[in-house]
Amino acid sequence: MSDSARVQETAPRSVRGVRDVGRIPTPALVIDIAAMDRNIQRMATFFADGPCRLRPHFKAHKTPDIARRQLAGGSCTGLTCATVSEAEVATLALGELLADVSGDILIANEPVGPGKCARVATLARRVPVTVAADSVAGLEALDRAATEAGVTIGVLVDLDVGMARCGVPPGGAAVSLGRRVVAARGLRLRGVMGYEGHLVGLADRDERDARTRQAMAGLVETAERFRAEGLPCDVVSAGGTGTYDISGRVDGVTEIQAGSYVLMDSDYARLDLPFEQALWVLGTVISRPTPARCVLDCGHKSMSKDHGYPSVRDVAGAAVLALNDEHATMSVPSDCLLGIGDRVHVQPSHIDPTINLHDVFYVLEGDRVVGVWPIAARGYQEHREIA
Amino acid sequence: MSDSARVQETAPRSVRGVRDVGRIPTPALVIDIAAMDRNIQRMATFFADGPCRLRPHFKAHKTPDIARRQLAGGSCTGLTCATVSEAEVATLALGELLADVSGDILIANEPVGPGKCARVATLARRVPVTVAADSVAGLEALDRAATEAGVTIGVLVDLDVGMARCGVPPGGAAVSLGRRVVAARGLRLRGVMGYEGHLVGLADRDERDARTRQAMAGLVETAERFRAEGLPCDVVSAGGTGTYDISGRVDGVTEIQAGSYVLMDSDYARLDLPFEQALWVLGTVISRPTPARCVLDCGHKSMSKDHGYPSVRDVAGAAVLALNDEHATMSVPSDCLLGIGDRVHVQPSHIDPTINLHDVFYVLEGDRVVGVWPIAARGYQEHREIA
Repeated sequence: MSDSARVQETAPRSVRGVRDVGRIPTPALVIDIAAMDRNIQRMATFFADGPCRLRPHFKAHKTPDIARRQLAGGSCTGLTCATVSEAEVATLALGELLADVSGDILIANEPVGPGKCARVATLARRVPVTVAADSVAGLEALDRAATEAGVTIGVLVDLDVGMARCGVPPGGAAVSLGRRVVAARGLRLRGVMGYEGHLVGLADRDERDARTRQAMAGLVETAERFRAEGLPCDVVSAGGTGTYDISGRVDGVTEIQAGSYVLMDSDYARLDLPFEQALWVLGTVISRPTPARCVLDCGHKSMSKDHGYPSVRDVAGAAVLALNDEHATMSVPSDCLLGIGDRVHVQPSHIDPTINLHDVFYVLEGDRVVGVWPIAARGYQEHREIA
Repeated sequence: MSDSARVQETAPRSVRGVRDVGRIPTPALVIDIAAMDRNIQRMATFFADGPCRLRPHFKAHKTPDIARRQLAGGSCTGLTCATVSEAEVATLALGELLADVSGDILIANEPVGPGKCARVATLARRVPVTVAADSVAGLEALDRAATEAGVTIGVLVDLDVGMARCGVPPGGAAVSLGRRVVAARGLRLRGVMGYEGHLVGLADRDERDARTRQAMAGLVETAERFRAEGLPCDVVSAGGTGTYDISGRVDGVTEIQAGSYVLMDSDYARLDLPFEQALWVLGTVISRPTPARCVLDCGHKSMSKDHGYPSVRDVAGAAVLALNDEHATMSVPSDCLLGIGDRVHVQPSHIDPTINLHDVFYVLEGDRVVGVWPIAARGYQEHREIA
């Protein structure tokens, strides 16, 4: 009896033997592993000289096989996760590797609700775990769970640096929350966090640069105030793929939570970052109703459209006109030779929600499939052991 | 060793024992089973007098437990699927029930690509299977697969009734494709299909009515032409939740492929259909950064935003301002009493892609969880047997 409470680290039997790109059932996610490895290397090189380090965001791909390469690539201080499920998968699959690199797990989000804090406490038995917090009620629940389990949970005070989502404002409110952490038996104050998510996608480099520095100023000042008040503040965590080289060069920021850089998408490609597109949705032509129209089997159940329609790689002059559940309708030049059964590579516009739709990556060296990697942390299941 | 090539008909152990709504880990999909059953009954009653029948669309929910209730509700001629994966799950989980009600499976889409036609042929050994086709190349591949497997695959000629996606135009091109089906050894011509997907969401009832009748005229005329030319045409398949009572009352249309009616969403709720909202995304308040702002743990990895932001049920005056991967940021009246850990029901704007993000439904009678139903056909895996 299978039980998906476990981490599936092996691909399903039905696709495990696929060795040629032409045999991949579509729609499917394919990775150009050479491009991915170059992205990992470029980011690791940027952070190699410190003092700021990289904390790759597991939410982007939810895949232990990718996180393993990111950690092995160097310059990492651990992993970032967005959910407790992701942290469970990362801990179960990568706990030993994390220990090898003296790394830990940061849940850069507020875990709340039945069982969530207890699950975090369970993880803290295996690997150092830190979470974001922005409320007294949240801290109290975390402290109860940690105390009951006899563990210590690390805490970053979550600051709103302008995104208007979670977090307390920089300054006094953060300091008083920091004091609550220090007073809690099961918690350990590690520092502050502030995600400039409203800025990571700004296309204008000067504007992105100026506004990011401004946002980071509030974060770093609060960190200094923590220290002035005698509160521990070793970690000042921020950033994303669009701001890694801005926030990552601000004095006082200690780590950057970047995720998308590893595989990229068409939205981030607008920014002229030094990272290559390494991820594609592979589709098959299922209909050629007119010379100027072509329909693929990859709809928005295989790639998200929240950042707009995807782009088409192999077909000059092609553009996606509509994305339905199971169809991408493209306009093509009327001399386009695409026929029924032909394959098309499509570049998704937003990597995280696209990957979250799939169960596996097919990993390519040229046209050879060299791996089928389970997207083990897809969805919201609880994970308790390795399958 | 678990193998997800199988159909998971049992919920994971970690959530199987959840009995109270307060213990459901969020974000989660919850079903009001009484409302769902009323929707099923209303739709079955509409089609009870025939001659047009209902072919519920499995793609909406991908869940055998729901399809079982739809088939048991009556007035059904079988199930509609959008993908071969869905058809595999429906066949493996519901094959015997389909036989009991003399039902079959329609894949209302063109199966193309490595292995897809062979997989359809494998299904045809267990249950009568019909697929849509709109090309000679597509028919040839299907025929080869059917002949090799020694089975017969049913075919509906797919017509473009105005949606500008797949399909040949009504009229002569469809007839000549029909002749190719009749000439193929492994295929059986069953009729025509035309999905008025561009009309199902029209808010103006008169416009929806007039344009749907016009679209159906081309479909029905082509069916008559098939018969006039001696081609079999028992099935004239069309429709969706927004047009079930228009297309379903057009003389000559024999079945309606409706899916969303069973659980509904805020997009279809605009149309004043006689169906109730039976599906909610359950979220938890994780942050209350200001009196006027409230952040839930249900982002667009738990509900799609391709039809706009979701609506909020329990909180008067609340509105979703932003939907990120793992966060729904709401504005709330400043006297709103929601606190950290409180639960909120959110009404998704588009049912199909929302459900496709989850692994299970929690089924509620009031506040009691009476079932945890696996969304067994989520994703694109091949399914070969019952787990």
